[in-house]
Amino acid sequence: MIKEEIQKQIFQAVEMVKQTNPMAGSITNTVTINFVANAQLAVGGSAAMVYLPDEAEFLAKAGKATYINVGTLLPIYEQTLPHIAKVLHQEGKPWVLDSVAVGIGYLRTKLLQQFKDYKPTIIRGNASEILALAGLWGLDGGTEVSNVRGVDSRDTVTAAKAAAVALAKWTGGAVAVSGETDLITDGSLIVYSYGGSHFMQKITGAGCSLGGVMAVYATTASPFIAAITGTAAYNLAGARAEKKVNGPGSFQVHFLDQLYEASADDIAKNPFEIKEV
Amino acid sequence: MIKEEIQKQIFQAVEMVKQTNPMAGSITNTVTINFVANAQLAVGGSAAMVYLPDEAEFLAKAGKATYINVGTLLPIYEQTLPHIAKVLHQEGKPWVLDSVAVGIGYLRTKLLQQFKDYKPTIIRGNASEILALAGLWGLDGGTEVSNVRGVDSRDTVTAAKAAAVALAKWTGGAVAVSGETDLITDGSLIVYSYGGSHFMQKITGAGCSLGGVMAVYATTASPFIAAITGTAAYNLAGARAEKKVNGPGSFQVHFLDQLYEASADDIAKNPFEIKEV
Amino acid sequence: MIKEEIQKQIFQAVEMVKQTNPMAGSITNTVTINFVANAQLAVGGSAAMVYLPDEAEFLAKAGKATYINVGTLLPIYEQTLPHIAKVLHQEGKPWVLDSVAVGIGYLRTKLLQQFKDYKPTIIRGNASEILALAGLWGLDGGTEVSNVRGVDSRDTVTAAKAAAVALAKWTGGAVAVSGETDLITDGSLIVYSYGGSHFMQKITGAGCSLGGVMAVYATTASPFIAAITGTAAYNLAGARAEKKVNGPGSFQVHFLDQLYEASADDIAKNPFEIKEV
Repeated sequence: MIKEEIQKQIFQAVEMVKQTNPMAGSITNTVTINFVANAQLAVGGSAAMVYLPDEAEFLAKAGKATYINVGTLLPIYEQTLPHIAKVLHQEGKPWVLDSVAVGIGYLRTKLLQQFKDYKPTIIRGNASEILALAGLWGLDGGTEVSNVRGVDSRDTVTAAKAAAVALAKWTGGAVAVSGETDLITDGSLIVYSYGGSHFMQKITGAGCSLGGVMAVYATTASPFIAAITGTAAYNLAGARAEKKVNGPGSFQVHFLDQLYEASADDIAKNPFEIKEV
Repeated sequence: MIKEEIQKQIFQAVEMVKQTNPMAGSITNTVTINFVANAQLAVGGSAAMVYLPDEAEFLAKAGKATYINVGTLLPIYEQTLPHIAKVLHQEGKPWVLDSVAVGIGYLRTKLLQQFKDYKPTIIRGNASEILALAGLWGLDGGTEVSNVRGVDSRDTVTAAKAAAVALAKWTGGAVAVSGETDLITDGSLIVYSYGGSHFMQKITGAGCSLGGVMAVYATTASPFIAAITGTAAYNLAGARAEKKVNGPGSFQVHFLDQLYEASADDIAKNPFEIKEV
Repeated sequence: MIKEEIQKQIFQAVEMVKQTNPMAGSITNTVTINFVANAQLAVGGSAAMVYLPDEAEFLAKAGKATYINVGTLLPIYEQTLPHIAKVLHQEGKPWVLDSVAVGIGYLRTKLLQQFKDYKPTIIRGNASEILALAGLWGLDGGTEVSNVRGVDSRDTVTAAKAAAVALAKWTGGAVAVSGETDLITDGSLIVYSYGGSHFMQKITGAGCSLGGVMAVYATTASPFIAAITGTAAYNLAGARAEKKVNGPGSFQVHFLDQLYEASADDIAKNPFEIKEV
């Protein structure tokens, strides 16, 4: 795929979402659930969040893509998450997995292991999370011992390249590693996406809401394009918002504004590079 | 009731809340729980949110009105919600029901069916939710099949008029249908309230927080006046905030500011029309 | 301790946090969980929130301090909270207890009674909460009947002085009573901290997020200094933010900005007085 083709597909994904207001349901953590919904709305999508198994199944079937974030697990997630992942896999519906804090706790580990078979269409995480997930799934490039510290990454995006490629090859979808420069791969191509802001580390939910936005784009684009489009939109909106603010409170506000204002053309033209794996 | 009388009662409700800082407890969804609390505080009320049955009962008895939103149901809601609704009904305390996403899931349906007998004093929802709730309760004007899509409405406010009137007649309270023009009815009169902003569709929680604010006004005014007052305050603050912003992030911030700054006189004079049913 | 020594230690705590980005895990309520995380990040710390017992234990051991807030109790808290409090006590790790709405509900009362033996290193609350907690623990200055109303205080900070001192003597840590003038005591000294804004009563989470920020400072400073530092940072940021805004929506945004921008020197020099008990 040449650069122009990718840009054309990014443009189409952004436009289609703005025109059709697609719903992407979520099961996500309580810390950033509001920010996820507002980011999904800002790009033109629609949001709905649930916890119960049958409601999750309803949303999974009613929506064209789903966002699953294992952030703040509640006991009911033990029933809800494997069920919805199975439904999504069986129905062939795209879903985004945010493997927040992989390695912490019994249930989180169990759930993430179960997801291996249900092949999340897009996996998003920071470098440490991607390394740890590949390790948990016994794939190349993964680390056996999780280096995850709460929600922070202690590893660089580059260090997670092999793990990201292995995960993408396993799922047949896309993997996005968030960092200073973001890496997105479908297992054969790697896109490096540029932009963003240092303030994204100073607010909670930049990563989670990006996962939610990727799910919105996945309602209309391929997993690889959806992951690239979400990342490009975030890098653009982050860079623009940073210029207007002095602190993280204002950044969050302006970031949502910029996400809303960004045109399909602007997002498609946000700087990125393509490499072969 | 002539227009001047309604305006006088709106004025009194706003003033009384600003002077007495009344508490309205809530059981509400995790997506917009923060926004509900901040909106309740902005108009001069006080907020408290709980999940457990005995805590809900305590709040129901301690406060003069309660807000119940069935958005993101957790398993404990199966015990908490029927219990608190029964307590509120028995004690004759006003409560606001936000029948978010009616039609989705077994528990939601069961809870909303149980509420029929406990007669929520104010029912707030978008057109699809009001139609579906009237249908669920077997009332005139309702639809048998829910047209609810996640949290969005696919029906117009006008289409929900008969359902809203039927619900208000059944409960003896008020029903508010949120849309471009808002409709509020007590079963015999219909008030159409004007204003608001297209940005209210681009943020999450405009509807939920309006329900929470109606509960605050219901601590001191009749259900009908409380529903009209909350709606008028939202239409005023929304229209004013829209003029100051370029995107949904800023809108949310300025909306809370305008809600806080709006005077009793401004809210009473926000445009509305009265019709007979 | 003379004033200069306290100021020096405040300065060091702020600097150390900015330089080392320490993680303080939280179990906290859903209303303000996002604001807690963002405030912790704004001062330079890192945040992670969980609900499940084994995840809480992981965070308690991985982090240098923990924040526990009993705001919106869920059933799982019955297992998680006593467990984590015990672990923290056994490991000698500092933790902050926010005894929100003490007196409401069976589980809340039971949990707060259990915490007596696990001696929270810092206890933060409004005057009514501090009085009620001392009463619940059978300490001097406490009230037998809770005067707590939801999340509001009906008592003055001065009225809670004896209770705060008694609690601090019992735990061997610090107690912070939030109000117009804030009181912090280690059982022998009392610090009165000045500043803040009336808008802090008009937003939800000013208190909770202060508790979370105290936990961040407790990763590097003594409980007494951590409580004073957090309070000083809040009083400074609150006073500065108030000057820039007209309403609570903007206040929240600017408050986070000011928290982020406040230098160690500014925070150390924020006005306070020291008295003997």
